[in-house]
Amino acid sequence: MALIVQKYGGTSVGDVDRIKNVAQRVKETYEEGHSVVVVVSARSGVTNDLISRARALNPEPNDREMDMLLAVGEQETIALMAMALHQLGLPAVSRTGREAGILTDPNHTRARIKEISGGDIQEQLDSGKVVILAGFQGHSDTGAITTLGRGGSDLSAIAIAAALKADMCQIFTDVDGVYTADPRVVPNAKKLKCISYEEMLELASSGSKVMQNRAVEFAQKFKVNFEVRSSFNRNPGTIVKEEIKSMEDVVVSGLALDNKQAKVVVSDVPDRPGAAAQLFQSLAQADVCVDMIVQNIGREGKANMTFTVPRDDVSRAEKAVQSAFPQDSTDTQFESSEIAIVSIVGVGMQSHSGVAATLFDTLAKNEINIQLVSTSEIKISVAISPESAQKATRLIHTAYGLDGDV
Amino acid sequence: MALIVQKYGGTSVGDVDRIKNVAQRVKETYEEGHSVVVVVSARSGVTNDLISRARALNPEPNDREMDMLLAVGEQETIALMAMALHQLGLPAVSRTGREAGILTDPNHTRARIKEISGGDIQEQLDSGKVVILAGFQGHSDTGAITTLGRGGSDLSAIAIAAALKADMCQIFTDVDGVYTADPRVVPNAKKLKCISYEEMLELASSGSKVMQNRAVEFAQKFKVNFEVRSSFNRNPGTIVKEEIKSMEDVVVSGLALDNKQAKVVVSDVPDRPGAAAQLFQSLAQADVCVDMIVQNIGREGKANMTFTVPRDDVSRAEKAVQSAFPQDSTDTQFESSEIAIVSIVGVGMQSHSGVAATLFDTLAKNEINIQLVSTSEIKISVAISPESAQKATRLIHTAYGLDGDV
Repeated sequence: MALIVQKYGGTSVGDVDRIKNVAQRVKETYEEGHSVVVVVSARSGVTNDLISRARALNPEPNDREMDMLLAVGEQETIALMAMALHQLGLPAVSRTGREAGILTDPNHTRARIKEISGGDIQEQLDSGKVVILAGFQGHSDTGAITTLGRGGSDLSAIAIAAALKADMCQIFTDVDGVYTADPRVVPNAKKLKCISYEEMLELASSGSKVMQNRAVEFAQKFKVNFEVRSSFNRNPGTIVKEEIKSMEDVVVSGLALDNKQAKVVVSDVPDRPGAAAQLFQSLAQADVCVDMIVQNIGREGKANMTFTVPRDDVSRAEKAVQSAFPQDSTDTQFESSEIAIVSIVGVGMQSHSGVAATLFDTLAKNEINIQLVSTSEIKISVAISPESAQKATRLIHTAYGLDGDV
Repeated sequence: MALIVQKYGGTSVGDVDRIKNVAQRVKETYEEGHSVVVVVSARSGVTNDLISRARALNPEPNDREMDMLLAVGEQETIALMAMALHQLGLPAVSRTGREAGILTDPNHTRARIKEISGGDIQEQLDSGKVVILAGFQGHSDTGAITTLGRGGSDLSAIAIAAALKADMCQIFTDVDGVYTADPRVVPNAKKLKCISYEEMLELASSGSKVMQNRAVEFAQKFKVNFEVRSSFNRNPGTIVKEEIKSMEDVVVSGLALDNKQAKVVVSDVPDRPGAAAQLFQSLAQADVCVDMIVQNIGREGKANMTFTVPRDDVSRAEKAVQSAFPQDSTDTQFESSEIAIVSIVGVGMQSHSGVAATLFDTLAKNEINIQLVSTSEIKISVAISPESAQKATRLIHTAYGLDGDV
């Protein structure tokens, strides 16, 4: 007899049959004697339809009205899900974000949760009801509907699990769990039984987009254990939780490959105090997401800056670099090239030596040139040419003993 | 400088282009210096889509969840309408029924308005904003979303006009206004400039479905003048307001034809006190809407009851009659036939004599047989055969001098 929060994403509730399928799974959990809160997203496609209608009326729709508009997607799903559960004989009741007392700041379309009262959800659970909660939405203290940004339903699920002190939070999605590497790249990648929040965050930020980081960070902050699993099969998923001692026995938990990065070299930057700050402030203002950074001395007392940015941000980055040094711009050179970043992630790295050596050795033996390296406590990333990225990922996967059965 | 409430129905906001068209009309009103509240329905088709999805999941969806579901239709429209107005450079803000403080009783799917606080609408108007209000919806005192039943957006518009003491409420629809008769039946019917609430109610209940009666009754109760006009052209519509003296100069304001009625004859009803009550209670419990009623003495101390019901209710009516007299059912006979009801309506009837004579005389001269007659203060209805109904309507229209140009 536990309190379980289950979150089902847009593809899991995409049509009437899939809603019935989810209702059946909820019923099974309920009939095992558990209290169940179901968090749902908008049916897949609905949000995009609403956005395209909005843009047809106004190319730059107002954020507050956008939230008013987008919140209808989840509101539709909660009502339909409650009806599907009623049809299976379960007592169920739907709640909007507002009804669940999900209070956010007033930053429409990307609001942050400030506080969750839970409304009457605990009361409804105590009376034996399944509660269906609209993900992605909350309200500001003026009462306006707000939304939590992309992937916001995961955050809703984690947050309500924290507020209700749920025993488990299950994130149902279209993948089976978290793998040692992307199975499309590494066919013999293994599903992880267990992973720490930190590893999950590093894998996500390195290109494994199972869940958005904000939800994982929230889970970490409030110590919410959660499981990532598939809504289309019965396989157990991956548990994400606090790091425990035994996790350190595994040196490398997983690999991430981000094949959509670019390497930028800014040469002949004036080599004076504050020049780097000037450069990266300008990039931040232009909303360019910079990852790996290397600085080295160039010719004639000028510096070269090398860093990586998402490939889509290159032209914005170039403008930002030009505006960073207006008076010196004739000297400063901007070059960019496509690059891939392969990362190894594992909390065990902290207590094991020689981890990086295996990585470098593997790449060297296979004549794959490393262009940049960066490290953190639980991650080592290398930037290599996109052509060799998939091969490199498979070789590294094998080198760290991660290969399972195909 | 007036406060004007404008209501646009589902066909008027049916797609992106129509929403733009409405936004343009709102802009014109706003730029004349008026404060404007716009009440909108769901885009036409949206509500039916939602209902069919609900029924695919549950043939008898729960009323509370149905309201949660259906309320999304209007919420979508208010956000889109606000965006369309922003695009035209107007300051506009959307409000749900809950945000407008439309408090109802808890009878989901057919809630009645108890009270309207208006929320911050007056404040928004005072600051120069156009306020877009979701029609059809409110909330109960437990905070649950409720809906007002079919035609509920008209009611929302009249009610918010009353709460804000608006100077005018305009109901934009797909007809030009209220006509002396249905122009599809009587090609030279005239549009009325002005009509009283009572006449509007009688015309509506007699088959002219321009607006639902609840909205008109609400307007009458709170003395809200309103205008019914088209959202597709600029023609002035029909003003509906309290009866004034000059209205009595016109004896008959309009005609209504209801061609979907059935005449039911229940013969050999036991002629004892309470038998009629028993019969009509049973019909009411079966939700059969009975209109004209005639009782006369049949053979051997038994009574015959004749009444009219909507044609779709006939089989329900037959069952209700059978269950009304279980012990006498072998004697009681049930017969039904198709019938049409033509009504003349006018507040002037109260002060003019000989009104009915013109009606009977017209029908007699044209050998149209009257099967039933009923009268109220401002209405006379006759039941005739469906075959002669359209001809009769045109003849009566001419007889009362209502004909305009074709």
